[in-house]
Amino acid sequence: MRRFLIDTDTASDDAVAILMALRTPGIHVEAITTVSGNVPVEQGTKNALNTVELCGADVPVYMGMDRPLLREPSHAYFFHGDDGMGGLQLPPPKRQPERLHAVDAIINTIISAPGEITLVTLGPLTNVAVALRKAPHIARQVREVYVMGGAANTVGNITPAAEYNIWCDPEAAHIVFHSGMPIVMVGWEHCCGQAVLNDEEMAYVRSLDTPYAHYTLDINRQALKACKEWLGLDGLALPDPVAMSVAIDRTICTSLGRYYVDVETASELTRGMTVVDELRVTNREPNIEVCKAIDIARWKETLYRTLR
Amino acid sequence: MRRFLIDTDTASDDAVAILMALRTPGIHVEAITTVSGNVPVEQGTKNALNTVELCGADVPVYMGMDRPLLREPSHAYFFHGDDGMGGLQLPPPKRQPERLHAVDAIINTIISAPGEITLVTLGPLTNVAVALRKAPHIARQVREVYVMGGAANTVGNITPAAEYNIWCDPEAAHIVFHSGMPIVMVGWEHCCGQAVLNDEEMAYVRSLDTPYAHYTLDINRQALKACKEWLGLDGLALPDPVAMSVAIDRTICTSLGRYYVDVETASELTRGMTVVDELRVTNREPNIEVCKAIDIARWKETLYRTLR
Amino acid sequence: MRRFLIDTDTASDDAVAILMALRTPGIHVEAITTVSGNVPVEQGTKNALNTVELCGADVPVYMGMDRPLLREPSHAYFFHGDDGMGGLQLPPPKRQPERLHAVDAIINTIISAPGEITLVTLGPLTNVAVALRKAPHIARQVREVYVMGGAANTVGNITPAAEYNIWCDPEAAHIVFHSGMPIVMVGWEHCCGQAVLNDEEMAYVRSLDTPYAHYTLDINRQALKACKEWLGLDGLALPDPVAMSVAIDRTICTSLGRYYVDVETASELTRGMTVVDELRVTNREPNIEVCKAIDIARWKETLYRTLR
Amino acid sequence: MRRFLIDTDTASDDAVAILMALRTPGIHVEAITTVSGNVPVEQGTKNALNTVELCGADVPVYMGMDRPLLREPSHAYFFHGDDGMGGLQLPPPKRQPERLHAVDAIINTIISAPGEITLVTLGPLTNVAVALRKAPHIARQVREVYVMGGAANTVGNITPAAEYNIWCDPEAAHIVFHSGMPIVMVGWEHCCGQAVLNDEEMAYVRSLDTPYAHYTLDINRQALKACKEWLGLDGLALPDPVAMSVAIDRTICTSLGRYYVDVETASELTRGMTVVDELRVTNREPNIEVCKAIDIARWKETLYRTLR
Repeated sequence: MRRFLIDTDTASDDAVAILMALRTPGIHVEAITTVSGNVPVEQGTKNALNTVELCGADVPVYMGMDRPLLREPSHAYFFHGDDGMGGLQLPPPKRQPERLHAVDAIINTIISAPGEITLVTLGPLTNVAVALRKAPHIARQVREVYVMGGAANTVGNITPAAEYNIWCDPEAAHIVFHSGMPIVMVGWEHCCGQAVLNDEEMAYVRSLDTPYAHYTLDINRQALKACKEWLGLDGLALPDPVAMSVAIDRTICTSLGRYYVDVETASELTRGMTVVDELRVTNREPNIEVCKAIDIARWKETLYRTLR
Repeated sequence: MRRFLIDTDTASDDAVAILMALRTPGIHVEAITTVSGNVPVEQGTKNALNTVELCGADVPVYMGMDRPLLREPSHAYFFHGDDGMGGLQLPPPKRQPERLHAVDAIINTIISAPGEITLVTLGPLTNVAVALRKAPHIARQVREVYVMGGAANTVGNITPAAEYNIWCDPEAAHIVFHSGMPIVMVGWEHCCGQAVLNDEEMAYVRSLDTPYAHYTLDINRQALKACKEWLGLDGLALPDPVAMSVAIDRTICTSLGRYYVDVETASELTRGMTVVDELRVTNREPNIEVCKAIDIARWKETLYRTLR
Repeated sequence: MRRFLIDTDTASDDAVAILMALRTPGIHVEAITTVSGNVPVEQGTKNALNTVELCGADVPVYMGMDRPLLREPSHAYFFHGDDGMGGLQLPPPKRQPERLHAVDAIINTIISAPGEITLVTLGPLTNVAVALRKAPHIARQVREVYVMGGAANTVGNITPAAEYNIWCDPEAAHIVFHSGMPIVMVGWEHCCGQAVLNDEEMAYVRSLDTPYAHYTLDINRQALKACKEWLGLDGLALPDPVAMSVAIDRTICTSLGRYYVDVETASELTRGMTVVDELRVTNREPNIEVCKAIDIARWKETLYRTLR
Repeated sequence: MRRFLIDTDTASDDAVAILMALRTPGIHVEAITTVSGNVPVEQGTKNALNTVELCGADVPVYMGMDRPLLREPSHAYFFHGDDGMGGLQLPPPKRQPERLHAVDAIINTIISAPGEITLVTLGPLTNVAVALRKAPHIARQVREVYVMGGAANTVGNITPAAEYNIWCDPEAAHIVFHSGMPIVMVGWEHCCGQAVLNDEEMAYVRSLDTPYAHYTLDINRQALKACKEWLGLDGLALPDPVAMSVAIDRTICTSLGRYYVDVETASELTRGMTVVDELRVTNREPNIEVCKAIDIARWKETLYRTLR
């Protein structure tokens, strides 16, 4: 069994990624930690608990940082809906989050199983950054880290230069990217930009007629609207499930390279940009494995399988 | 006759671009102004004068700024050779530069022919920026401006985020890009990265056996080495002649879009990045026409024609 | 009994400040938390434990952050000696630090006695900043905070613009200063710059012939050298004991004003500067009480009393 | 005869400084150049011409930069009145400014009399900075430069960290301060803050009953109001005449020291701060002579003498 730890600002696509992890055989989700991002951390915690309940899973959820390290919080209601779940207004979850803070849950989970834990991050990196500062040795004790975030020298989604998760808390991302953790970055444009379910594919998902399939489409109804109207896509993009699928099976990534990656924190214009030294002009040691392309067809298969 | 004004940090590929302009029927080069960049401005001035002499042209050359507005000068000897001309150590030009400063030559040339002058910039934008500050109205009096520089949300060449010309003097570029001048940006990667002459094509150029063809290859011998060894290209890239060919005939540009473009000046990591709002997420008015792809075959034809 | 919580990068003058608190009737030191600053946090923790042992006090010491939030650690060996204690190489303390992390000790101490705890900070503000991010409500539950740090629009000591404690971790200081905590800032130049023991006064301290007096002079022997040779003072400056004396009795402060104070984080030149809006030109609400002058004679009396 | 060149954003106190120079025996004002600052450059040029006319002097006035190098222009109408002259709405001057641009006038004046010209700057340093970039050698050819501007590690007047002239165009100030020019900085607070004419002293000036005395009081009526109401002074501060009096006779400066001075350009919070290395902690060579105190009584005498 592989042991996953998921850090998430749970909104619509995070929830699908959590579903995927919970419903993939051979993967045990040790804990879910929540962070401010798409929605305030209290809402994201509820969304994570609801998703865990839907799967009948027994996974502890730990609430974490309610804002970025230095920046003001900035949520993505326009994309995910008021509740982050398409405005579905789901009933409150029956379970409560654990009492322990997410930062300490991350530390404890990793140090109690050195070399065992796969960390998957689906939101801003605030929790992970603070965990690294409180307990720097977790950088060497984590097995691997999959980060949904960034854009490898291509256009961003929240600004022309930056992807939302990294933009939200660039200082946290800077800490994490330079921590020595073995990180795979699954960036926005090259990886997630093409991972779009079109109308036909969504109809197929609906036809699966499982609670997971309905949940996936229902909580993403606002995201679908935003993808079509705001991003001009012809369907529903699902960035977090792409990153999760890479964490589940990294061979889904068809182009992967180790590069020196730095995170912009000094400028407002390029705040949160992930600067990838693709041409090796900096003489800096590579610190990040960058996923540059994925097998979209296989990704869809992975997704469908977990929704059946 | 179209009337060109060329501002250049004349080294190997600038010289070829100047050749192209001087040898294209229907174009009159009113003046050449030089600026610190690839080489110190005194050397670039000699290189421009030599190129003008080779063509037997009667074009005045004005020497300009010997350093960027705020940044330290940084030359590209490794790319263009000690003299910027492949280390050829050409004999000193017979003509001298004019006494007038390049900044004032730019101002005078534009205001003496309002609506007539096409400005082509092949180097850092220091001269043009100071001209704009001394005489702001030239922004409305210039016919059009073609800028070789920048990279449209893609990897840079001097840093992972920036192209050399803009990186050298980002504050000058910021001034020029926000001046209201009608600018076409011919960026590095999408446009110039593919405009590479391979061994066969260079052999063809040599076979033309004109002084222009030999000059082109000889002054670019160090650049060829740098392209192969440093950039990993399989031939000689010629960015400035690409920009010049767009200035000569903009239909060579196969993809062109108006975008809001900003220039990074606040951060060292992303210094000189040209941030292009391709997804229209900033709500800012487009200020720059960005050339996103060119017809490489046509570009080569244009080049060959001027070397015959 | 007033209840003190002391956060410190314990080196020579911190130790004297801790002594003062431990030996002042009516004050109970609930806990000491340590942080990277003058010396690495492990050394500072030993120094704090040694000082507690000297006083025969039963105060728990919690080790905290081993580096600033974002900046590289930078210690002050040249000022305080290799061990931070004048190079005395004191025997290792008998007691160990507690297992709990300083950040959690700060949170627990404050929330277990809402409205009761006086926090005195003698080092960089990393621990306090992270505590505020993990448990934002402690800002309203702490009774008051005395910060040794900053310089009110006057020259700094580590750079022309900044005082060492704030310079070390400006982002942490920014978080703390804008947290809503009721803060009194005891800055460097106006307050501590004049609080200097000259040769006669040090001879008087020595003549007290108590372990506290000898300890004070011995652990500060390198600091004395640095004060004379590097700062050009004619004796030993003791900034932390000044801040502690204000915490013990704020009437020792002869000029106190509420101002809007911001902390510079964006520039290297002025990194860590505490910008005090003394002329009220910013239209921002005052957030900090700034101590602008202290009664030096009374401060010396306070110090002597605790060393007897 | 000493030969003065005055660069000024002519408003009320600049005009008095110009008066002082024009009416001091032994000083010949070669030229006045104007720059955007207190008022737009066109208005400042009129104000300078009016002041020259009042004195019946034959001094050419050259109009210069209409905005800072990079920053947006920001005028000080609230301090000097709509016209910069207390709202007096003086009749338009009879003379026109010269055709030559101020930048070139500065260059020509200095290089035509190497080692002879004393440059006095009373406004933002835009003209001087561009002149230095166009003709770097003027740095060694100017005799000396007196700069009204900055604040030596003390509170500013436009922000808590910065004085207005330097704040307006910090990049220009950075260029000038690092140019190698022999500069005396007459800062705001220590020098000009105490140079205040109280009601009695203003009554005395009025009693002189010369056109110069009346002009001085009339054009400063708005400034007087601002000094009293906004700065809380008990009279009229006249910063530019202080700097001019130091230029006329530097022995009026009672405390002068050579320091390394840098200008903040990277941060908005401390934009335009003049960071003076008073404690010599930077290991940088001194580049500026900083006037730290002046003989106020002698300054007043100098002023009165020129108004008689």
